[in-house]
Amino acid sequence: MKVGGKAYRTIWQREDGRTVEIIDQTRLPHEFVTVVLRTLDDAVHAIRSMQVRGAPLIGVAAAYGVCLALGVDESDESLNAAYAALLASRPTAINLRWALGTMRGALSGAVGDDRVAVAYETAARIADDDVASCKAIGEHGAELFAELARDKKEQKGAEPLNILTHCNAGWLATVDYGTALAPVYTAFDAGLPVHVWVDETRPRNQGASLTAWELGQHGVPHTVIADNAGGHLMQHGRVDVCITGSDRTTGSGDVCNKIGTYLKALAAQDNGVPFYVALPHSTIDWCLSDGIAEIPIEERDQREVTHISGLGEDGSVIEVQVTPQGSPAANVAFDVTPARLVTGLITERGVADASAEGLVALYPERAG
Amino acid sequence: MKVGGKAYRTIWQREDGRTVEIIDQTRLPHEFVTVVLRTLDDAVHAIRSMQVRGAPLIGVAAAYGVCLALGVDESDESLNAAYAALLASRPTAINLRWALGTMRGALSGAVGDDRVAVAYETAARIADDDVASCKAIGEHGAELFAELARDKKEQKGAEPLNILTHCNAGWLATVDYGTALAPVYTAFDAGLPVHVWVDETRPRNQGASLTAWELGQHGVPHTVIADNAGGHLMQHGRVDVCITGSDRTTGSGDVCNKIGTYLKALAAQDNGVPFYVALPHSTIDWCLSDGIAEIPIEERDQREVTHISGLGEDGSVIEVQVTPQGSPAANVAFDVTPARLVTGLITERGVADASAEGLVALYPERAG
Repeated sequence: MKVGGKAYRTIWQREDGRTVEIIDQTRLPHEFVTVVLRTLDDAVHAIRSMQVRGAPLIGVAAAYGVCLALGVDESDESLNAAYAALLASRPTAINLRWALGTMRGALSGAVGDDRVAVAYETAARIADDDVASCKAIGEHGAELFAELARDKKEQKGAEPLNILTHCNAGWLATVDYGTALAPVYTAFDAGLPVHVWVDETRPRNQGASLTAWELGQHGVPHTVIADNAGGHLMQHGRVDVCITGSDRTTGSGDVCNKIGTYLKALAAQDNGVPFYVALPHSTIDWCLSDGIAEIPIEERDQREVTHISGLGEDGSVIEVQVTPQGSPAANVAFDVTPARLVTGLITERGVADASAEGLVALYPERAG
Repeated sequence: MKVGGKAYRTIWQREDGRTVEIIDQTRLPHEFVTVVLRTLDDAVHAIRSMQVRGAPLIGVAAAYGVCLALGVDESDESLNAAYAALLASRPTAINLRWALGTMRGALSGAVGDDRVAVAYETAARIADDDVASCKAIGEHGAELFAELARDKKEQKGAEPLNILTHCNAGWLATVDYGTALAPVYTAFDAGLPVHVWVDETRPRNQGASLTAWELGQHGVPHTVIADNAGGHLMQHGRVDVCITGSDRTTGSGDVCNKIGTYLKALAAQDNGVPFYVALPHSTIDWCLSDGIAEIPIEERDQREVTHISGLGEDGSVIEVQVTPQGSPAANVAFDVTPARLVTGLITERGVADASAEGLVALYPERAG
């Protein structure tokens, strides 16, 4: 997608062929800065500190982290150490394990100098596949939005389709296009009038800082709201559809996503608002069937709750403390939305029911 | 309640007999400052700017606002103008209208110099009645907590009772003791082990800034969480009971409270967690039966969403912008939780079912 008129991905191999560059998402929306990753440690730090975040992008960043490690030492020991360090960098997103597994599979038969080249080729293929998946998700989702807009027009006349999203599952969460926001961009570019309610998504504010920024750069009408507001808006008919991403989806259709997603899904169900989740196949953990019991949930530093960073009056980015001295905080990063609350899963292959049957119908190679 | 060892109410008549003093709640938790109200305009400003907030306290502040107006001009015109200005200062809390109605009733037969004295006596009575109501709510609610703690002990052994609250319905929201937090203080003071999950309550952060501060001052164990976190905690059995206040309660038991309350009530129902609302009778709007359709919901300045104030590194309170330049925000201040999601209403007379029948059983004088 474009930033200030120039096309960017969130991560790319540099011209030197041996280093990788990323958009530093911790600096958005107030500063647009890119960072060069030169070592495995740089990649682990980028994932852990959330310079890159979003399940699909984390997977690609991990794949490139393997490349950076092998560029220094192409041995199996180096590969295994990189695998372990990257896998431990964030616990919840399954794409990390999936991308690392894909890298290990491709590298198992490659040795010597060739190995580094195979690593970069594989990482580039994972990145390109992610882009293709997101484009396909955009098309399938935009068809759904067009149907919802037609129904709304019959009932309410020519009003924009009001879409609520939580956290950031836009192009910044992937290599390009996004998951939940891909249908928004596709529909908008096709001329469908849309308006996005953007949950600010405390504690890290990825909605207010990343989703609002992305949508603004692309010219998509949007309004930032507190995470508390969605239920009220749904009660009053001001949300036509909810769409979020997923950090891990069980084979049974449970969706693990940014903390607070579950609350919005409950409100959607209570008000008859469709609740869709957009995800590439790499987000599906086929081994799991009970998301609440089985998915490990990351707990992050309480400072993300007690402090907030933003733009000060002098134009610099500063951090302020919002809690009283001595009050502890807890910071659970994800929650699980049970499949029963999900209207459908939008994948690169089309829209599935949020159930084992629905997913296997789209991915028959996973049957049995 | 005590601040630094000294007993305070949130509002009091000063020794000069003609002015009123309040705790400026916009400065908490980082600064404890009191402000003198000398005129009607001061009182309107204090309510509108949320130096005083919380439905019961707004009512008492409005009553004192009438006193300040009559101190300058005791005519009916002055009384009517004060009534109108104060009623318009905040739209959602019904206590404002109730307190102003009580003042007008008491003043209708009082003329001349006597009138100002009657005004102050009436405002003081409203304040003292609020304190008595809150104490009674504390006792009724603490009995409920003790029962829940006994049940928990049988099932899980000696663990603290985990109570989740949203926004601030503590002593700062009333004259003293609080509504939702009164049972917490009463139970804690009686030796029951409790722990409070404090929703930070964006956009104004009254949970993080007021509830956490109050609980900390009193020594009650608590943990601040993002508004998004409660659903996850309930899914994992880490919340034993929810309790909130109310800004307006319909005669049918619908509860209008700080935005986001509805989302927590949905999660409580989905996970079998009891959801109680604590309120004095002055919060009940007996004329209304459909909270979602009938209660006016305040929309506040979008700056409360786009900017956050907190303590900077140099110890001063500063404001930072969290959204991108050019991204608009919406700021709906309250939502309505339908009676079907409320386990019980804790009032000064005891615990009622959240229904017309339940309320009339406690307030038989309202029957028919």
